[in-house]
Amino acid sequence: MNLLQEIQQKIDQKTKPIGALGELENLAKQICMVQETTSPSLKNPTIIVFAGDHGLAKEGVSAYPQEVTFQMVYNFLNGGAAINVFSRQHDLNLKVVDAGVNFDFEPHPDLIDMKIGKGTESSLRGNALNADQISDCFDKAKALLERDDLKDVDIVGFGEMGIGNTSSATLIMSALYQLRLDECIGKGTGVDPEGFKRKYDVLEKVLEKHQGATSPEQILSAFGGFEIAMIATTMLEAASKGKMILVDGFIVTAAYAIAKAMNPEIQKNAIFSHVSDEKGHRLLLQKLEAHPLLQLGMRLGEGTGAAMAFPIIQSAVNFMNEMASFESANVSDKE
Amino acid sequence: MNLLQEIQQKIDQKTKPIGALGELENLAKQICMVQETTSPSLKNPTIIVFAGDHGLAKEGVSAYPQEVTFQMVYNFLNGGAAINVFSRQHDLNLKVVDAGVNFDFEPHPDLIDMKIGKGTESSLRGNALNADQISDCFDKAKALLERDDLKDVDIVGFGEMGIGNTSSATLIMSALYQLRLDECIGKGTGVDPEGFKRKYDVLEKVLEKHQGATSPEQILSAFGGFEIAMIATTMLEAASKGKMILVDGFIVTAAYAIAKAMNPEIQKNAIFSHVSDEKGHRLLLQKLEAHPLLQLGMRLGEGTGAAMAFPIIQSAVNFMNEMASFESANVSDKE
Repeated sequence: MNLLQEIQQKIDQKTKPIGALGELENLAKQICMVQETTSPSLKNPTIIVFAGDHGLAKEGVSAYPQEVTFQMVYNFLNGGAAINVFSRQHDLNLKVVDAGVNFDFEPHPDLIDMKIGKGTESSLRGNALNADQISDCFDKAKALLERDDLKDVDIVGFGEMGIGNTSSATLIMSALYQLRLDECIGKGTGVDPEGFKRKYDVLEKVLEKHQGATSPEQILSAFGGFEIAMIATTMLEAASKGKMILVDGFIVTAAYAIAKAMNPEIQKNAIFSHVSDEKGHRLLLQKLEAHPLLQLGMRLGEGTGAAMAFPIIQSAVNFMNEMASFESANVSDKE
Repeated sequence: MNLLQEIQQKIDQKTKPIGALGELENLAKQICMVQETTSPSLKNPTIIVFAGDHGLAKEGVSAYPQEVTFQMVYNFLNGGAAINVFSRQHDLNLKVVDAGVNFDFEPHPDLIDMKIGKGTESSLRGNALNADQISDCFDKAKALLERDDLKDVDIVGFGEMGIGNTSSATLIMSALYQLRLDECIGKGTGVDPEGFKRKYDVLEKVLEKHQGATSPEQILSAFGGFEIAMIATTMLEAASKGKMILVDGFIVTAAYAIAKAMNPEIQKNAIFSHVSDEKGHRLLLQKLEAHPLLQLGMRLGEGTGAAMAFPIIQSAVNFMNEMASFESANVSDKE
């Protein structure tokens, strides 16, 4: 009997009709296969929120001013954001990575300095990231997961904060899958109709400027941002270390799409937390053949979808480890 | 400013784009309105699993023998069932109500004796419950929620166990909404094609026998079971006490449909945890205009969907109470 058969047998001997735990059974199988065990675990579950600023934000693509990026980083560090509330609720460690915020932070135990730069170049003017910065992201991703507080983490939930990053994700999605802009673009944090038209016009020009970007590296370089690049490289690193990757909403999924284009193997480790209300996310998940766990109409980012989905994943692990079998519970099986 | 406006204002001042928490915002509003507050709470969250046996089970409508009902009650009391695993995970109190299992249990601190009878009459032969038994359910529901361990519970998740009860739920759904049997019937715990044909034939005969049952009381009396009747009456009692009602899968939703037909007001208190994989459940939820929180392909009953959905509801309460406002966090609002 191979491992997959052993896992399936253990699931089928639990006191429940065959297949009755639905998606939980698929999750259990996936985690067991990655961890090469029939008794999976999710030690030190951690949400990492990657924050970065975007040159494109200054072209008027967002409803909020750029300063909100650093202000929200403080909100994370002070415990007041949605991701803090949900992380506390589920006993998730929460770390914030400064991947390139346009602000100088004082040191804080929960803030990890991985600054690639102080905001990307505007993709309307050039590449958002240059080749050295991409290379820096790979190095920093490696260093990040070697930290004492992250090296023994079995599952990483990825979150992001960066005013303007819905635009980056939209551009990445359009370029990577050769989709029309109108299939990918949405209202982000909530631009009004006039703002939406401005955003559309800007993104159309950016796409035209970077028509030559076709490889995942070129697309990442063209459209950024620093937090998206750090997420993609950290996902690759996490998968190579056998960690589960918990994908959040539209922006994190765009980062995952880049990472998967670089190494399709990472899909074995990826769990998709939710489909967000941001317009392009559903189609992006379809392109990735990804099945999100939650559909709650959320569109907040920060890793909030990942944190909300975490208990479902924990349930999959718990039923494998804790549920009785028909035999152990003296319950009659089917007649 | 009325309460609803106060609630909406509090939600909109949180550090997030307007509406960005999707269903969580709807849940927060609903709970706040029931509790008449802008600072909601979910004290002593509790799952109650109602167990009962069905006369109809002896007509060969289930894949499992009737003894599985009492064996699973022991599994609940010993902590080995799926509902135990998920209740432990989410710190939910778990109580089992013997609403009418065909077995004599010794006393146990988590088992509440509310036995209406030792299994219902087969609905193929007569009414599953007689008028005295229905009346007994109302009395026992009242007594149940007056117990010391249940009176201070803000939210009750309803679960069930009873071999044959998917058939009862199917019959209730068909009669209550005048739907054809083939729109309501499914495979339950997993009957094979031959078993499904037998189940279909039996249920068709039962429906024909009870054509005269049209009021919710008559339908409940005709098709049972004891656990379904106790769930319906306990839901009515819980709503009258201002508790939130957390509805589980197909069988519990059928019980809710009866309760709502008796008193439409209870929908203010009802939260729908998930859409199960049992065929009729999706249509039943549509008939109730109910929006389930989870869609995980589960079909196990026991209250497992309710337990899995609980953290989402807790998140709705937590963001209301714990998230910072734009002002308190010094975050700039939209430009």
